[in-house]
Amino acid sequence: MKRNLYLNVQEKETALSRFLEAFSHIQPGRERISVIHSLGRITAEAVYARYSSPSYNSCAMDGIAVISAHTKGASESHPLRLIYEKDYLDVDTGDMIMPPYDAVIMAEDLIETEDGEGYTIIAPTHPFAHVRAIGEDIVAKEMILPTGHRIRAIDISVLISAGITEIEVIKKPVVGIIPTGDEMIEYTEPLEDGKIIETNSWMFENLVTENDGIGHRYPILPDDLELIRQKLTEAVSECDMVIINAGSSAGRDDYTIHAIQELGEVYTHGVAIKPGKPVILSKIQNKPVIGLPGYPVSSYLTFTEFVLPVMNMYCRTGGFVRQQKQVTAKLSKTLMSGLKYEEYVRVKLGIVENELVASPLERGAGASMSLVRADGFCVIPQDKEGILAHENIQVKLVKDMEQIRKTLVLIGSHDLILDVINDLMMEEGRDTCLSSTHVGSMAGLIALQKKEAHMAPSHLLDEKDGSYNTAITREMFPNEKMVIIKGVRRRQGFIVKKGNPLNIQSIHDIMHGVRYINRQRGAGTRVLFDYLLKKEGISKKDISGYEYEAATHMSVAVAVQKDNADVGMGIYSCAKALDLDFIEVGFEEYDFVTYEKYLELPAVREFIHVLKGEAFKKRLDMLGGYGCEECGQICFI
Amino acid sequence: MKRNLYLNVQEKETALSRFLEAFSHIQPGRERISVIHSLGRITAEAVYARYSSPSYNSCAMDGIAVISAHTKGASESHPLRLIYEKDYLDVDTGDMIMPPYDAVIMAEDLIETEDGEGYTIIAPTHPFAHVRAIGEDIVAKEMILPTGHRIRAIDISVLISAGITEIEVIKKPVVGIIPTGDEMIEYTEPLEDGKIIETNSWMFENLVTENDGIGHRYPILPDDLELIRQKLTEAVSECDMVIINAGSSAGRDDYTIHAIQELGEVYTHGVAIKPGKPVILSKIQNKPVIGLPGYPVSSYLTFTEFVLPVMNMYCRTGGFVRQQKQVTAKLSKTLMSGLKYEEYVRVKLGIVENELVASPLERGAGASMSLVRADGFCVIPQDKEGILAHENIQVKLVKDMEQIRKTLVLIGSHDLILDVINDLMMEEGRDTCLSSTHVGSMAGLIALQKKEAHMAPSHLLDEKDGSYNTAITREMFPNEKMVIIKGVRRRQGFIVKKGNPLNIQSIHDIMHGVRYINRQRGAGTRVLFDYLLKKEGISKKDISGYEYEAATHMSVAVAVQKDNADVGMGIYSCAKALDLDFIEVGFEEYDFVTYEKYLELPAVREFIHVLKGEAFKKRLDMLGGYGCEECGQICFI
Repeated sequence: MKRNLYLNVQEKETALSRFLEAFSHIQPGRERISVIHSLGRITAEAVYARYSSPSYNSCAMDGIAVISAHTKGASESHPLRLIYEKDYLDVDTGDMIMPPYDAVIMAEDLIETEDGEGYTIIAPTHPFAHVRAIGEDIVAKEMILPTGHRIRAIDISVLISAGITEIEVIKKPVVGIIPTGDEMIEYTEPLEDGKIIETNSWMFENLVTENDGIGHRYPILPDDLELIRQKLTEAVSECDMVIINAGSSAGRDDYTIHAIQELGEVYTHGVAIKPGKPVILSKIQNKPVIGLPGYPVSSYLTFTEFVLPVMNMYCRTGGFVRQQKQVTAKLSKTLMSGLKYEEYVRVKLGIVENELVASPLERGAGASMSLVRADGFCVIPQDKEGILAHENIQVKLVKDMEQIRKTLVLIGSHDLILDVINDLMMEEGRDTCLSSTHVGSMAGLIALQKKEAHMAPSHLLDEKDGSYNTAITREMFPNEKMVIIKGVRRRQGFIVKKGNPLNIQSIHDIMHGVRYINRQRGAGTRVLFDYLLKKEGISKKDISGYEYEAATHMSVAVAVQKDNADVGMGIYSCAKALDLDFIEVGFEEYDFVTYEKYLELPAVREFIHVLKGEAFKKRLDMLGGYGCEECGQICFI
Repeated sequence: MKRNLYLNVQEKETALSRFLEAFSHIQPGRERISVIHSLGRITAEAVYARYSSPSYNSCAMDGIAVISAHTKGASESHPLRLIYEKDYLDVDTGDMIMPPYDAVIMAEDLIETEDGEGYTIIAPTHPFAHVRAIGEDIVAKEMILPTGHRIRAIDISVLISAGITEIEVIKKPVVGIIPTGDEMIEYTEPLEDGKIIETNSWMFENLVTENDGIGHRYPILPDDLELIRQKLTEAVSECDMVIINAGSSAGRDDYTIHAIQELGEVYTHGVAIKPGKPVILSKIQNKPVIGLPGYPVSSYLTFTEFVLPVMNMYCRTGGFVRQQKQVTAKLSKTLMSGLKYEEYVRVKLGIVENELVASPLERGAGASMSLVRADGFCVIPQDKEGILAHENIQVKLVKDMEQIRKTLVLIGSHDLILDVINDLMMEEGRDTCLSSTHVGSMAGLIALQKKEAHMAPSHLLDEKDGSYNTAITREMFPNEKMVIIKGVRRRQGFIVKKGNPLNIQSIHDIMHGVRYINRQRGAGTRVLFDYLLKKEGISKKDISGYEYEAATHMSVAVAVQKDNADVGMGIYSCAKALDLDFIEVGFEEYDFVTYEKYLELPAVREFIHVLKGEAFKKRLDMLGGYGCEECGQICFI
């Protein structure tokens, strides 16, 4: 069974600079468009005014036009009477001022004469007073906008004033996008086992749009060398550059590399970045053709690292080049990485006590949802084995920094209600939102200790008295004023398949080959399960699947639903959401631990406001399995 | 002659909150659109996954699918041979893993057997190794996006993965825009004296677009009560809200207020902000109708302060509300303001020695070009008489902060070459640009002393020896290491009308009623003129127009061209640009003064690179009147 080998795995910077060099002949395209449709476009050359503005001496205030020489000598002690048409004319803002009139007196400074046939003034004026002289705003032949300027609404108004109706702008590069794969289906087709909905091409198309290009997506191609060759030839002739996805790795069916080799020149096959290794950088008919990997996170990253720089060549001029925004943040925990690649790690950002903290997320390349939840990426350079906790790192943003500033950061135990609370905060539109990272109750409290989060959702049982959260908080924060914001009482139990085919009634029914799915270390639900095992005198070794872990209640539920396991421990709402059966073990208290001083934060106040609201109670009813008698109450401990 | 009075001039906050309250019934509209066309739209409700992703257990690596139980015991000392179809199947990334297979071994970890009919492994594997379990990325019924989320390219890919093809988004509010005014013409019509090209409506339309609405512009209406009444009625029925512009001040022809009073209810006529006082806030048929003033700067400001908050009501949900970005900066000089209004002052921003400095620009409401050149606005509250120099102020940005960071700040003397240098910096695309403020040479050097600028363009004559710039720099920066970056030698002289009808040959011909136009105090050209007057023993009083000032050479030239003056002093290139005659007085040296340490700044290096380049010399030739023998040379003084 033959497999492709990567031709050569190159360092990212080497691969990219070599590739860009091969296209140094690329010149930005230009087109002439109407100014009124130019919003957001980039000037391809400097723009000079055709007309001056104002184009004549014009009145700057509502009032009267006067001959300034006639106003000499007017004062409070010697008011001067002005006669209509001899000394003045009525004028409005914008009216033309013609000789002999050379100044304007504002309406506010006029005293109407008693006969109503003129005005009296008590101060003289001078030439060009309250007159907008010709060219005061814009002088014809002046440069209004330089090359490479992104046009804003305010620029459009000035361009029109200056007599410009059409301008030369950079032409948007057309980026062809070819999705491939026998297992891929269009999102409009029915989903069957073994098939995958093709999504990357739509992300690429929209990333191209976000970065001032025009995405041109082709339909999905099967893994067929001849078809791929044909489509590549067609796309290269129709577009400025082409992305082909995926088929860039070393699997059996990877015809992409062969097709490109036949049609053009391959510069790079394989780049030392993680995730994202299988990248093809190549040239067909003098145009860039880039093969990107199929995993969502890999494909996003390799797009930003390889496609964007090439797009920028098609529109290179100063201010224009689109770069991902970066911020400096403090890393919350040590990140290890291999020397074999430059690694990109998704992070959540939060501003806690005026410090921007980056908490790393899971690293799987397939987790597109974690890309949606991420705030940015930090990069571990290839020559570093990792980054130590508390070091400052650069984070490339995927979310707006403004929004991050307004975000309440929760790290700890997972529950569906966190999404609901965020949704209600967003819906109320009070300009705060919530981000939650699910690491389990214990890890959440540790993050709170380190000021990486504002709040830790927690349901930690005190085995001594059966109470929740208070004892552990007292123990872990001995010198701090802490509060517990009461959350919900929730039903914990065993999630089993619909109809409970294995007839599981208690923890004793989970031995003897029944496949269990556990939660990760530190999760409150795992602590509860261990407590039950101990209480019943059952050994962990007797639980088949004790080491098979999931990170959320929903992941446990879906594993049971789809038969990766027979039973798992979790909350009722998740069993209900997936229409599974539930064997109750008991109620537990799911609360929010925080510092007393954080109660003053606007986002925390809004959070409590939502917890206490009627809308939240209704949403709990819909989810099922929650009690909310104390919801939003504050316990000072 | 009757004039409208403002009904009531209100404080901004009072006027706005009263107005918004009158529209508390407004609910955001919704519409259902295709996910693939949803980029940049805002979710109107939470979005839940329909499918899990992956929707089956799938292979995470190219390699072989194995039964994990069969791999037990493999080690380097006891390699294990796997037999095709008994122990393993070949699989590629994304392939479905079906029982009894439950794990994947990567191609890299396989040793091909010598007979080529199987593989040997030297380590065991465990269930779900390199398998993407069902729902690992997305679990069906999970909330993917909350209400009020602005959709990005990466969200689109996740939505499609989760089986979502259409979503509910906030409907964009339709904002009607009615331009009015007898003197206004469409930009497509020929410009005649006394006519003004209508531009505000196009700015409004594009501001509406920039802020997630749909602008609907109507053609220009004459000042005619009946027509305005008809069009308002029509617009209110077709749109969600209406802007009418201008006709909101107290001039004779202001029919707007009368039309609105007849059709609906006026809440406010006149707001205590400057610029921008003549604002109408009103309601017709339960919809907001806002009258905005006609001056470009006033119209921009009142749009952001009054129209945006109302637009936000039509799309209110959390993360969505568009607000102008603000930054904190140090004010460079004291700003005075009246207690009668809240005042908005345009500022230029620059980062000099790590401090963000805001330098106020001119305050005229008519200067739309200064709006284009501005980086933002600072607000002087109504209850303050001003803000002291060096105080920290909030600046509302009209330019991207990223760009401001890369900007080389020049404050000082004006020359057309500054625009050219900026254009060449932008064109070269090295990611720096130049901003220049024209306050005259002397004021520029003072700004440089205060670290408000990186560089001061200057042409200050030393009367003792006829040299330029060196003596004054030594005097003003006695304890600093300074350099002069040599600029151009430029022809200074008298700009007169084409054909020189008054036959002006020397400074002696500028007396006796010839109308002169001067430059502002501190301008090098004024210093030169004063030097010439003194040398020739002529009194300032004998110069008619000595007090009539312009801020740039181009303003002087246009005043002469359009007969606001007969003669002014300026540079040859401006006379040439406007096809005027020029009587040479001599050459002068126009250089750039800066601190020696600033030579290391990337933007300064790029600046010097441009000065020395061939492209710059070509542009100087086209402008005319410049010598560039020493251009870009550095003199350490």
